[in-house]
Amino acid sequence: VSDEPDAAASRVTQQLTFLLELDKAKSVYRRSYLTTEDRLEDDAQHMWHLALFVLVLAEHAAEPIDVLHTLELVLLHDVVEIDAGDAFIYDEEARLAKEELETAAAERIYALLPPDQRDRFRSVWDEFEARVTPESRFAASVDRLQPLMLNHATSGRSWREHGVVADQVRKVNAGIARGSPALWHAAQALIEDAVAKGYLPDPGP
Amino acid sequence: VSDEPDAAASRVTQQLTFLLELDKAKSVYRRSYLTTEDRLEDDAQHMWHLALFVLVLAEHAAEPIDVLHTLELVLLHDVVEIDAGDAFIYDEEARLAKEELETAAAERIYALLPPDQRDRFRSVWDEFEARVTPESRFAASVDRLQPLMLNHATSGRSWREHGVVADQVRKVNAGIARGSPALWHAAQALIEDAVAKGYLPDPGP
Repeated sequence: VSDEPDAAASRVTQQLTFLLELDKAKSVYRRSYLTTEDRLEDDAQHMWHLALFVLVLAEHAAEPIDVLHTLELVLLHDVVEIDAGDAFIYDEEARLAKEELETAAAERIYALLPPDQRDRFRSVWDEFEARVTPESRFAASVDRLQPLMLNHATSGRSWREHGVVADQVRKVNAGIARGSPALWHAAQALIEDAVAKGYLPDPGP
Repeated sequence: VSDEPDAAASRVTQQLTFLLELDKAKSVYRRSYLTTEDRLEDDAQHMWHLALFVLVLAEHAAEPIDVLHTLELVLLHDVVEIDAGDAFIYDEEARLAKEELETAAAERIYALLPPDQRDRFRSVWDEFEARVTPESRFAASVDRLQPLMLNHATSGRSWREHGVVADQVRKVNAGIARGSPALWHAAQALIEDAVAKGYLPDPGP
C-alpha cells in the first residue's frame, strides 16, 4: 500500500499552514504613511509595492539581475517581522537589537513549510540580509527608495514625527547607489525637493 | 548635443509616477477579513499574499507554468480596482457592471508608464482576465483559494455578513480545479469543514 496520496495531502497542508501564517504580515505596521488615507503602511503592502518596483525598475540595476529571484527576495524580506516587529530605519539601536529576534522568527516561520521549501526560502532571506549578490543589492535599493517616496508624497510626515533631519536621510539612502546609480540620482532629487519644500529640516551637520 | 540624459531622467520620472499611483491599491478594500485584527483586507495585501501562494504552490499547477510570468499576473491583477473598486465575488451583477470601469482604469493607469512598459503591463492584465494561458488559469485558482482560506480562518465572517451559502461557495470555487486539481481538493476540504463547523450555511439547492 502506497502512502503517496497521504504524503501529497500533508505537503499541501503544510504549505497552506505557512501561507495562512503569512496573513499576520498585514498587521505589522511600518513608519511610512499611505498617500490616500490616514494610516501607516503595513509589511504586506510594502512587500507588494517593492515587487512592483522590481518589475518596473529592474532595467536600472547597477549589474544584470535575475528578476524572478529579486522578486523572491522582496516578497519575503519582511516576513520575519511577524514575530520581530518593524524597526525604524533611522533608529540604529532598535535595528541592532532586532537581529536575534529575526533569526528566531525565520527559524519558526519557515519551519512551517516542507523541508525543501523551508531551506530554500530561508536561504532567500539570508541572502537578502547579506547583500552580497546583485539581486540583493538591488532589492535593498528599492527597499530604501520606496519609503523615501512615500515620505516625500506625504509632506515628510513620518520624518517630522520622528525628528529626522536631511543629513540622516542622505546618509541612510546613499546606499541606494550600490544597487542602482540611476535610482540614487532620482532619490537625491526627492530628498533635496523635500528640503526645499520644508518637509525635511536641514540644520546642517 | 545628445538629449539622452534627459530622456533617461524622464523615463525614471514616469516609472516613479506610476509606482506612486499604485500606493492607492492599499486603500481598496475587499470583503475578506484579516485573521489578526478587525479589518478588511486591501488589494495590495491580497496581491502580495497571492504572490506567495504562487511561489509556494506552483508545483501543484495543472500544467507547467512560468513562475515569473505568473507572479506578474497576480501582482498586477487588481491594480485597475484603484479606479473601479472591488466587486464581491458572490455578487454577479456588480461584477458585470465593473468590466467597463476596469478597462477605462487600465487605460488611465498603465498610460502613466513609458510606452513599452505601458503595453507590456496592459497585456499582462488582459491575459489575466482572459484565462486562456496555463499561468492565468493558475493565477485564477489561487485568487479563489486565498479568500476562501481567510473566510475559513475567520469562522466564515464575510460569508455570514453577506448571506452566502455553501452551494454558492462550491460553485464559484469549482473553477480552482482548472488551474490545479490538487488545490481544488484542498479547497473542497475547507468548504466542507466550514459547513461542518457552522461557518457556512448549507440549506441545499
